[in-house]
Amino acid sequence: MKILVINGNTSEEMTADIDRTAKKFARPDTEITTIRPAYGPRSIEGHFEEYIASAAVLEEVARHRDEYDAFILACYSDPGLAACREITDKPVLGIAEASMHLASQLGHKFSVVTVLPRVKPLLENLVRYIGLENKCASIRCTDLTVLEVESDPDRAVRELTEEAGKAVKEDGAEVICLGCAGMGPLDKRIEKEVGVPVLDGTVSAVKTAEILYDYQLKTSKVAAFAWPEKKELVNTSPVLQKMCDGN
Amino acid sequence: MKILVINGNTSEEMTADIDRTAKKFARPDTEITTIRPAYGPRSIEGHFEEYIASAAVLEEVARHRDEYDAFILACYSDPGLAACREITDKPVLGIAEASMHLASQLGHKFSVVTVLPRVKPLLENLVRYIGLENKCASIRCTDLTVLEVESDPDRAVRELTEEAGKAVKEDGAEVICLGCAGMGPLDKRIEKEVGVPVLDGTVSAVKTAEILYDYQLKTSKVAAFAWPEKKELVNTSPVLQKMCDGN
Amino acid sequence: MKILVINGNTSEEMTADIDRTAKKFARPDTEITTIRPAYGPRSIEGHFEEYIASAAVLEEVARHRDEYDAFILACYSDPGLAACREITDKPVLGIAEASMHLASQLGHKFSVVTVLPRVKPLLENLVRYIGLENKCASIRCTDLTVLEVESDPDRAVRELTEEAGKAVKEDGAEVICLGCAGMGPLDKRIEKEVGVPVLDGTVSAVKTAEILYDYQLKTSKVAAFAWPEKKELVNTSPVLQKMCDGN
Amino acid sequence: MKILVINGNTSEEMTADIDRTAKKFARPDTEITTIRPAYGPRSIEGHFEEYIASAAVLEEVARHRDEYDAFILACYSDPGLAACREITDKPVLGIAEASMHLASQLGHKFSVVTVLPRVKPLLENLVRYIGLENKCASIRCTDLTVLEVESDPDRAVRELTEEAGKAVKEDGAEVICLGCAGMGPLDKRIEKEVGVPVLDGTVSAVKTAEILYDYQLKTSKVAAFAWPEKKELVNTSPVLQKMCDGN
Amino acid sequence: MKILVINGNTSEEMTADIDRTAKKFARPDTEITTIRPAYGPRSIEGHFEEYIASAAVLEEVARHRDEYDAFILACYSDPGLAACREITDKPVLGIAEASMHLASQLGHKFSVVTVLPRVKPLLENLVRYIGLENKCASIRCTDLTVLEVESDPDRAVRELTEEAGKAVKEDGAEVICLGCAGMGPLDKRIEKEVGVPVLDGTVSAVKTAEILYDYQLKTSKVAAFAWPEKKELVNTSPVLQKMCDGN
Amino acid sequence: MKILVINGNTSEEMTADIDRTAKKFARPDTEITTIRPAYGPRSIEGHFEEYIASAAVLEEVARHRDEYDAFILACYSDPGLAACREITDKPVLGIAEASMHLASQLGHKFSVVTVLPRVKPLLENLVRYIGLENKCASIRCTDLTVLEVESDPDRAVRELTEEAGKAVKEDGAEVICLGCAGMGPLDKRIEKEVGVPVLDGTVSAVKTAEILYDYQLKTSKVAAFAWPEKKELVNTSPVLQKMCDGN
Repeated sequence: MKILVINGNTSEEMTADIDRTAKKFARPDTEITTIRPAYGPRSIEGHFEEYIASAAVLEEVARHRDEYDAFILACYSDPGLAACREITDKPVLGIAEASMHLASQLGHKFSVVTVLPRVKPLLENLVRYIGLENKCASIRCTDLTVLEVESDPDRAVRELTEEAGKAVKEDGAEVICLGCAGMGPLDKRIEKEVGVPVLDGTVSAVKTAEILYDYQLKTSKVAAFAWPEKKELVNTSPVLQKMCDGN
Repeated sequence: MKILVINGNTSEEMTADIDRTAKKFARPDTEITTIRPAYGPRSIEGHFEEYIASAAVLEEVARHRDEYDAFILACYSDPGLAACREITDKPVLGIAEASMHLASQLGHKFSVVTVLPRVKPLLENLVRYIGLENKCASIRCTDLTVLEVESDPDRAVRELTEEAGKAVKEDGAEVICLGCAGMGPLDKRIEKEVGVPVLDGTVSAVKTAEILYDYQLKTSKVAAFAWPEKKELVNTSPVLQKMCDGN
Repeated sequence: MKILVINGNTSEEMTADIDRTAKKFARPDTEITTIRPAYGPRSIEGHFEEYIASAAVLEEVARHRDEYDAFILACYSDPGLAACREITDKPVLGIAEASMHLASQLGHKFSVVTVLPRVKPLLENLVRYIGLENKCASIRCTDLTVLEVESDPDRAVRELTEEAGKAVKEDGAEVICLGCAGMGPLDKRIEKEVGVPVLDGTVSAVKTAEILYDYQLKTSKVAAFAWPEKKELVNTSPVLQKMCDGN
Repeated sequence: MKILVINGNTSEEMTADIDRTAKKFARPDTEITTIRPAYGPRSIEGHFEEYIASAAVLEEVARHRDEYDAFILACYSDPGLAACREITDKPVLGIAEASMHLASQLGHKFSVVTVLPRVKPLLENLVRYIGLENKCASIRCTDLTVLEVESDPDRAVRELTEEAGKAVKEDGAEVICLGCAGMGPLDKRIEKEVGVPVLDGTVSAVKTAEILYDYQLKTSKVAAFAWPEKKELVNTSPVLQKMCDGN
Repeated sequence: MKILVINGNTSEEMTADIDRTAKKFARPDTEITTIRPAYGPRSIEGHFEEYIASAAVLEEVARHRDEYDAFILACYSDPGLAACREITDKPVLGIAEASMHLASQLGHKFSVVTVLPRVKPLLENLVRYIGLENKCASIRCTDLTVLEVESDPDRAVRELTEEAGKAVKEDGAEVICLGCAGMGPLDKRIEKEVGVPVLDGTVSAVKTAEILYDYQLKTSKVAAFAWPEKKELVNTSPVLQKMCDGN
Repeated sequence: MKILVINGNTSEEMTADIDRTAKKFARPDTEITTIRPAYGPRSIEGHFEEYIASAAVLEEVARHRDEYDAFILACYSDPGLAACREITDKPVLGIAEASMHLASQLGHKFSVVTVLPRVKPLLENLVRYIGLENKCASIRCTDLTVLEVESDPDRAVRELTEEAGKAVKEDGAEVICLGCAGMGPLDKRIEKEVGVPVLDGTVSAVKTAEILYDYQLKTSKVAAFAWPEKKELVNTSPVLQKMCDGN
């Protein structure tokens, strides 16, 4: 099968890293292509960047919807997830959502360890959107920016391990989700330190895409993710307009 | 005070209607300007349009943030609300959020009556985001599109009254929120029919903006809506880039 | 418009303070009268006093229901709120309820800082009654009595600021509600200290009353707050009996 | 042991009925006295009457607190429950609360069948206050007033049986709670008709009082129901003032 | 009445202790027999033992269902509770469930103090199964095993008192439930230390059984606990097979 | 990889059916063995059978824990899931849990369609145990027994399609989970009829096992599913005793 992984931000290094991560545990017959959007923020650390990235990511899914069998939004805010699910019936996976569903089957509760404190409310709302608030022990932040995770992985391992340890000891977490696409290379290192399962979102999403594809499952088109209504998009990219021209 | 009302969609007629609605119950000293974004869908009836509109609305708030005292997102999906709150500390109101908070103080529970059934999941998630799921009796849809609400108000009154009546009789609603910015002109007509308070979102948001302004309240900058981090937005509108250049 | 503010307790100084607070941010054309009930506790710090005050406050609303356009119960337990909403269809505002709804539109979550620890369970239940438990980060108490808030405002500012700071740092609060009517004079002082929006309940209720009045909204009479049934009240104040004689 | 049962309303016939009900399943060594308050509504069918009754009931508990071993508030809105628990450490039982806790141990979910539709929101809030919202299948109303339950028990059985049947068939109820103190004489008749356990509140509370007494359990005085603070109650009944003079 | 108390584990000493506890506050006319299952773990400290014990306990209820008026599962995981309720319509009580329902009527919230940390997730799920998650302040563990509670009661009192004290001070607990059947002898000792009501589960269940019996209440047979369907149990104890042969 | 699928019941035909289903969408390199327990009910339609089956299934996992890479409990009540997770750190999947997590990623909400009405409460509790109650639109029953699903698949398709259709139209379901292991052969037939994704639990669990294995994830051993404590199991199967002899 062919999977398109879309880095939510426009950092080239991070795109390369996500690509490597996505391929690490993929099956031999899974073809993965990782891209970044044509425009948007270098990193996503708040709602502002998330909303810009959502539109940019949406455009990539629109552009490539016939070329791939599944799409992965590789940013831990799952930017534009619901919208992307409207313009294709092939599986679209958010890396937060995918990792949290897998984590829920490995322990009583999971925690997310992530970057700057400002993303905590955003992730709290995301967990509620996903519907797993009763399985989430806590969301714990560090003082790492997204790009520092990339540039200083050793420090990232150190700080994330510390917060993960506190999540286990103080919050009742039994599984850890890494709350940033850039943390993919660190999963097994942190797992060894903390002693509980540690999940990267991109890997989780790739693996989930594989099984949805195998089981021939598609996104439900009955209401939430029905095809867009026919309508005019004023001054908007033709690739998006095409999504509203009937499916 | 000066309020900028931003219609989420690009329909000219609807923008004019929203403008009239916004002014209907405003105080004499409240100056209201209503605009539509430079690009985007003619109407918003799903996540796809919502996400495009979010970015477009965000750009308008960014462009005008120094000219107004408060900003209102006049689409009942509150598109881009959290992001807009990051780029200014002046009040930013969503019309769904504002109407639901007022409705909660007028009866035990409220229901939302709105357009096509496909928006029901979107609004269910919105109610949870807003945090009022325990005050919301139901979300009831009609077969009206957003533009049909505009073009055939009599039919809209008829259909919305019917669903509102069912919400009261069957779901335990005691107050009705009109779930589309285009329904503003119909509030008091439907109220008379149904016999319970009926709230339009735009009016609710304008009035809430007035009192937040009077009480000198600003959006909290402590985490969820902190100013954007300094960073590069690649190939993105300069007006948005400016938001990331420090505040 | 004319608003009747009813201090829940019978303290004269506090009634004067509440009156000043109520007028501080009111519109010039809002006429505010502040009274205290004919009987009842000097201060409210538990359910016992609250229930006595509820009946006393109810009697004041009954007595004056034709003279004012809106009624405000100026005690942070919102004593008798539901009952008062039955005997008039004009807006009746609780200061806790009003402040929490406004606070919810200024940040991800709010906390309440208040008097003695014994009121914490009472306020936890109140938040659930209001329906905003998912927006409330915490309720934090001090060792201040209600009357000490009045008599030693500097100490009150100091202690409330400390708890508010902890609410922000430890509990994820982004907005603070002052959990006692007597704290009205302190809102902007504490706001300056803590650096997040701080809301007084009385001001919040006065401002909300203004906009409900402007928008011509009344309390729903469909069930929860329907007019009282006709019936005899034995040995009860005639002003209350009148409420049951048909509306 | 000696139990004081306080009818929330001032109806003499109903007080006699409650007295008979309270004694029906009591142990031989349980002495039950049933009284009605010195003032207040003939029946309670809304918040207005409930709040007046709360103060009246509170006064009875205050007056008799040294003479009995436990107190039962025999009105299905549990009027003044929290306040009464502050002025004594002996068990104080609400008939709604007691019946719902027992019902929860007899089936997956319970429903309440009760009087006029206007009490439904009140009972919904009460269930949330009690904390059993996840065990409550539904609250179903009839068009019976409280006094009609008394005066026409056959009609009451008929209407309550019908709603109870619907609760079982449509809402998933497996146990029925009778939502009015006046329904006590009907429990076993309705149980026979519906075929699931039917609980009267007064009996439930009497029986629960017996076992709390046997097990030497008292109300916790640590916060929610701590003894009232010392303070002046202006123009208030001396029996209530005494509660604030130190315990 | 005759009550069968079944210790979930096979420890002889603990069975004797539970028997003494069960009788301590029982009425003179309540005949209590306490047994342990024919097979199973010496103590229950996880799901593994719980599931083995569930089947073993189920067999005891099946064997004795005609000889007793009520059945009590005396292990704080309420092992097999739902299954036991299917094979008889006489009251079957879980000691966790019974104690939590009583505790809820004595304070705003209760906490459970118990043995090893590994049972915390199990008890969290149990509280949700019981439906009292909104009344439960916390579950606090010690490093005591079940058998150490038996063998060193003084240490148990010390450690449980410490955790109970923290539950009151830090978590908002007002009542304490002892989370292990072996803690029965310690209830009043710990109560004296902590100063809030302390409930043992076995006593709570015995007392609740007494009143359900008095009030002639039976388990609802309408769905969750309907009699088992007729069917073959392959290679299974005849006493269990008999449960499926029609009732 | 090698997966052991354990049919919860002892029906030979159903075991064969589950085996075929488990292999239908498995990867070529996944080796699947399907067994039934040595003892227990022919079918599981209530808590009674579930608890007997739990112990029987547990014994099979214990017996084979070293021979397989993952274990699947192929009964839609996930019998003994938590206990099985204690005795191995290899993935143990419940078919209900696995299918609900996948379903959650294909639509706004899912419904379960299943056998006799008596299992509805059991499944409601299971959904809460799994933590997905906010993603579950409804549980809908038919009058099919488990064995009738096997013996008359056409009738099963007809009845399940009807309930699934109602779940979509009336309850807001967008995805359907088949609530019985015996329904595996029907998934794509019902999907074609209903027009929304339909998931079988066994397939879902097999596919999830594959990816947990690929990603080298194991069950967390930190608390909920820690290895059993060392202890004696009296008169219990040696294969179970071995689980308590240290790992």
